[in-house]
Amino acid sequence: MKNFPLQHMARERFDVSTRGRGLVEITGRLRQALSESGLREGMAHVFVQHTSCSLMIGENADPTVCADLDRFFARLVPDGDPLFRHDAEGPDDMPAHVRSMLTGTGLSIPFSDGRLDLGTWQGAFLWEHRTRPHVRHVTVTLVGS
Amino acid sequence: MKNFPLQHMARERFDVSTRGRGLVEITGRLRQALSESGLREGMAHVFVQHTSCSLMIGENADPTVCADLDRFFARLVPDGDPLFRHDAEGPDDMPAHVRSMLTGTGLSIPFSDGRLDLGTWQGAFLWEHRTRPHVRHVTVTLVGS
Amino acid sequence: MKNFPLQHMARERFDVSTRGRGLVEITGRLRQALSESGLREGMAHVFVQHTSCSLMIGENADPTVCADLDRFFARLVPDGDPLFRHDAEGPDDMPAHVRSMLTGTGLSIPFSDGRLDLGTWQGAFLWEHRTRPHVRHVTVTLVGS
Repeated sequence: MKNFPLQHMARERFDVSTRGRGLVEITGRLRQALSESGLREGMAHVFVQHTSCSLMIGENADPTVCADLDRFFARLVPDGDPLFRHDAEGPDDMPAHVRSMLTGTGLSIPFSDGRLDLGTWQGAFLWEHRTRPHVRHVTVTLVGS
Repeated sequence: MKNFPLQHMARERFDVSTRGRGLVEITGRLRQALSESGLREGMAHVFVQHTSCSLMIGENADPTVCADLDRFFARLVPDGDPLFRHDAEGPDDMPAHVRSMLTGTGLSIPFSDGRLDLGTWQGAFLWEHRTRPHVRHVTVTLVGS
Repeated sequence: MKNFPLQHMARERFDVSTRGRGLVEITGRLRQALSESGLREGMAHVFVQHTSCSLMIGENADPTVCADLDRFFARLVPDGDPLFRHDAEGPDDMPAHVRSMLTGTGLSIPFSDGRLDLGTWQGAFLWEHRTRPHVRHVTVTLVGS
């Protein structure tokens, strides 16, 4: 076990422009925030201020994984499903809320020696669940030393 | 990027009385805990000590969204599903565990300037998955300065 | 509300050897890390560096709950599903990524008086989603005082 003082917090906000439904990798943007903070040991927390997109950690090597994840959700929560009453913003409105509920709006990642402690195949993604492009607000909070 | 010292932790426990299956908004209760802590910048973590309810961030404006989320789960994980062996506490017992597994028992929310950093349409909810009313224990941990 | 200084961070890494698909309880291993850290009040964060296993908090008393959770996923995300294109590592490859996406790679648990603040029936589990045994890397980060 390693021990460290816990002294600093750094906060960064940035926007992600999506091109409609699909995964956008943000690992590089998180690495940049960590580097700018100067922190070496600690935890990074990422948060999206929306209820129709989400954050997840997934495979970053093979793009067919991202396509398959989206295909799975398209079958599980189909657009225009007559089950849903809430469709004020269209057939993808309520499915986007369900997808967001199942994947979550927050993500925590440890970092060590100034580097995100991700596995070889792990990447951090913002998942746009609406079919049209959106600008999404992300808050990164880093705590550590 | 903004930098802050990281100095304090505050902990608050409270109970939520549910009226059976459905979402109970707890955003106001979290705001109150943050206000009482006197902290201005940091992270709030919320945790439920149960395996048949969960926490989530969802749309707080249109009650049909909550109803649709519940309708989605009722179809995905129906009460009394013959797939399940564990039914010691009734037909909603195992479905409640599955719903809890899919949504999670913890939630992290950043705060800034003494306010929860939620988006315009975001609210924090405790989701009761049992059909009968329960008293649920919630632990809030605030870290920051 | 209780207030504490926030001063220390401790980090522990350990491996979990799985016997193929199924839940492995790691609550004891987390308790040990907390005990070794000497911290009394704070938060524990657990993270797996993989995209085909996950972490969850679930019922730790009745083993049929674990079996039912796995049976639910076997129906929701069947191995060899023709929906999936990514099958480089076999019929359980893409289903493992989907299961991981739905349950998550991280977990936060508060602790108090030197003890994990879990409910009576809560246990922390690593969930292996591949059918063959694997060695999984876990990172525990404890913050508090």
